[in-house]
Amino acid sequence: MSNKTVEYVQSNKQRMLDELKELLRIPSVSTAPEHKSDVDSAARYVADKLKAAGLENVEVIATDQHPLVYADWLHAPGKPTVLCYGHYDVQPADPLELWHTPPFEPTERDGNLYGRGTSDDKGQMYMHVKAVETLMAVYGKLPVNVKFLIEGEEEVGGESVAKYVAENPAKLKADVALVSDTEMYAEGMPTLCIGLRGLVYTEIEAVGPMRDLHSGVYGGAAPNAVFGLVELLAKLKDADGHINVPGIYDDVRPPEPAEKESWERLPFSETEFLKAEVGSCQLTGEPGFSVFERTWARPTLEVHGIAGGFTGSGAKTVIPAKAVAKVSMRLVPDQDPAKVIAAFKEYVKQATPAGIQTEVRILSAGPAIMVNPDHPAIDVAAKAFSEMLNSPTVFIRSGGSIPIVGDFAKHLGIPTILMGFGLPDDGLHSPNEKFKIDNYYTGIMTIAHFLEQYGQ
Amino acid sequence: MSNKTVEYVQSNKQRMLDELKELLRIPSVSTAPEHKSDVDSAARYVADKLKAAGLENVEVIATDQHPLVYADWLHAPGKPTVLCYGHYDVQPADPLELWHTPPFEPTERDGNLYGRGTSDDKGQMYMHVKAVETLMAVYGKLPVNVKFLIEGEEEVGGESVAKYVAENPAKLKADVALVSDTEMYAEGMPTLCIGLRGLVYTEIEAVGPMRDLHSGVYGGAAPNAVFGLVELLAKLKDADGHINVPGIYDDVRPPEPAEKESWERLPFSETEFLKAEVGSCQLTGEPGFSVFERTWARPTLEVHGIAGGFTGSGAKTVIPAKAVAKVSMRLVPDQDPAKVIAAFKEYVKQATPAGIQTEVRILSAGPAIMVNPDHPAIDVAAKAFSEMLNSPTVFIRSGGSIPIVGDFAKHLGIPTILMGFGLPDDGLHSPNEKFKIDNYYTGIMTIAHFLEQYGQ
Repeated sequence: MSNKTVEYVQSNKQRMLDELKELLRIPSVSTAPEHKSDVDSAARYVADKLKAAGLENVEVIATDQHPLVYADWLHAPGKPTVLCYGHYDVQPADPLELWHTPPFEPTERDGNLYGRGTSDDKGQMYMHVKAVETLMAVYGKLPVNVKFLIEGEEEVGGESVAKYVAENPAKLKADVALVSDTEMYAEGMPTLCIGLRGLVYTEIEAVGPMRDLHSGVYGGAAPNAVFGLVELLAKLKDADGHINVPGIYDDVRPPEPAEKESWERLPFSETEFLKAEVGSCQLTGEPGFSVFERTWARPTLEVHGIAGGFTGSGAKTVIPAKAVAKVSMRLVPDQDPAKVIAAFKEYVKQATPAGIQTEVRILSAGPAIMVNPDHPAIDVAAKAFSEMLNSPTVFIRSGGSIPIVGDFAKHLGIPTILMGFGLPDDGLHSPNEKFKIDNYYTGIMTIAHFLEQYGQ
Repeated sequence: MSNKTVEYVQSNKQRMLDELKELLRIPSVSTAPEHKSDVDSAARYVADKLKAAGLENVEVIATDQHPLVYADWLHAPGKPTVLCYGHYDVQPADPLELWHTPPFEPTERDGNLYGRGTSDDKGQMYMHVKAVETLMAVYGKLPVNVKFLIEGEEEVGGESVAKYVAENPAKLKADVALVSDTEMYAEGMPTLCIGLRGLVYTEIEAVGPMRDLHSGVYGGAAPNAVFGLVELLAKLKDADGHINVPGIYDDVRPPEPAEKESWERLPFSETEFLKAEVGSCQLTGEPGFSVFERTWARPTLEVHGIAGGFTGSGAKTVIPAKAVAKVSMRLVPDQDPAKVIAAFKEYVKQATPAGIQTEVRILSAGPAIMVNPDHPAIDVAAKAFSEMLNSPTVFIRSGGSIPIVGDFAKHLGIPTILMGFGLPDDGLHSPNEKFKIDNYYTGIMTIAHFLEQYGQ
């Protein structure tokens, strides 16, 4: 890549980091109504910085929930168009007591930047902005046409951006999308993600008696909403982690042998994974499948949270009237979210214990996504990444879900380059989320380099 | 009974109710550390009113947790001694949003007094104080010797009073204990309770990964503390409500045929019970046992509350690191709490799923209690109750637990008269707990009448 762009990034390091910190200080928690104004502030901050970088037609677009930010630069006729996507919203920071430093006061420690959103996704999204700034500053123009679409609902299902993409295919027309919301397989290893799991996120509410009852007086005759929900949830999976919903595995497409083989070549130690990342007494999951298969290519079901009855300190002898749980399923190719939802609802209905009434609410739904690694843009990206880190690029999947990638494929007909600079121990969605500061700069330079190469 | 005592109660009705309301306004929630000073205030209030009623040697006794109140009047030589017990502490009021009027602002509606503790047990305990006041006011003395022992930890296991009874048998020496903390089988039906279930109350904590993990990245390989706890809890009972802990039914003594027959003569409608009291879509519990057997004479297991992971509004895709549940078992004759605890802990250990670590904490433990209905004091009580309400007294059991009754038997060698004036729909431990105001006055008069008869 050009020395000029490297020099520019080097000589603007501190400012580029300070700007990111300013964005991280805004607690733009999209799921929390009390943070609505923070979410709006984050959107405006991103819009301002896109303008400052030299982007044009900058818009903060109101939606039913949180605003979208759009910007473009379209003065490279005959060159391809890249649609840069990212999100400025973050997960809630709780449990707060487990953070070593405040989640919304970004703190440097041991070469990392700690704070909610550092890697997911403010830090990575902002690399795109700084890459464009760098190219504009150095050349006074961009090597390709660029569009930005930054959303604020990624952590809550991304409904508004999905609707916007569906309704504005002409405006968003591009040759490829570029997303930095994934991780490098290992430090220093250029990684492109070519598969993402889908997600169906639900909330199950169970109701037993009409009010909390005295467990002495009624215990033995009255249904217990918490226990009823517990019984139901326990029926959703067997002890090996198989999902019991009938038909759920029918449409699962196993990975091709070549892809499975490439996973086997990745450096991986189950012991290290257990110790450094998971930290439980053992790993779990379906027997007969590797950790890669279990987390990348198999559907899973998780209970994210449960609440009901008395949970204060001490003892209260009630039979609870109501309980609620958050339950999601990760989907893989070729599972259809609508089919999964229907089967799940039917099974919950059948598995609901006597005396209990349940309701399933669907909070979000999106299918799994696969990108063709032989697409020309992916090829350029893999080469650019490899050149920058001086190491061959590996192709992996992620167990997580980025629904927008499916929307880009469906409505714009384009593939997405998932070029992530996070690291496996970044603690996404956890306390003490971090982003390696060097990766932030490497990301800016790599994206600039990719755009240069793609414009050749 | 004497006209004079009736007249005294009649002409002091409003004051007697106002005093009770004042006591009810003190939020003496014994399980909540933030209510410690309220608990102390309630103890002092009871002590002051005992003194005002004419009792002597009034003491507020400091303990490791909440104070005991003691008082006596011992000037009836040759007459028996009655030990009046009750509790001034109450259950937490949550869920607050379900109360029609504030839990600690007692409110009269349709002949009832609504508020936390109205029937359990402030209202019923205070009847004893007012009965003694009445007799002292009318006769200048009492027909029997009387001791009062009122505690503030009944709703949290009653450790301090148990210790005090064990250590002070001479001071508390009596012929019979009198407790009003149970209910009448039906309105207008004099009822003595001769059986109580025991209770073992536990808290189970489950730990999975070392921190909350991203469910996309780790789902399929990492254990989930909430789901692990759910799997464990579901194994504690089968679909019929049988407890799966090995050996738990070994020492269960079935009720005698005569007692079972007396239960069959009680007016009872399952439909009415379901509709008016439980309010679920159906009753549950062990097949082959009547509702009376299931709630009075069979051990049961309940989950009182559960918490873990994300339960805010919206979606958060975490694999939770930790979860906790409150679990109790009601015991019947002749189950031994220590044996039950050992079996329960062992079973939890065995039933804990792979990848999860659990810890069981015992919050309280007490055995079931049976009182001999042929004891002379019980006989006098049954007759006095019957005369006052002009209806035969019935003998029932309660599914609840009053551990002090076991302590009186063990350390003082005396039976307990469980003479309750609550009604089945009083909503103990629930929102909108109430006490029928007429029953408050009837209770005062009945207790006074019993003391008169017992002194003959």
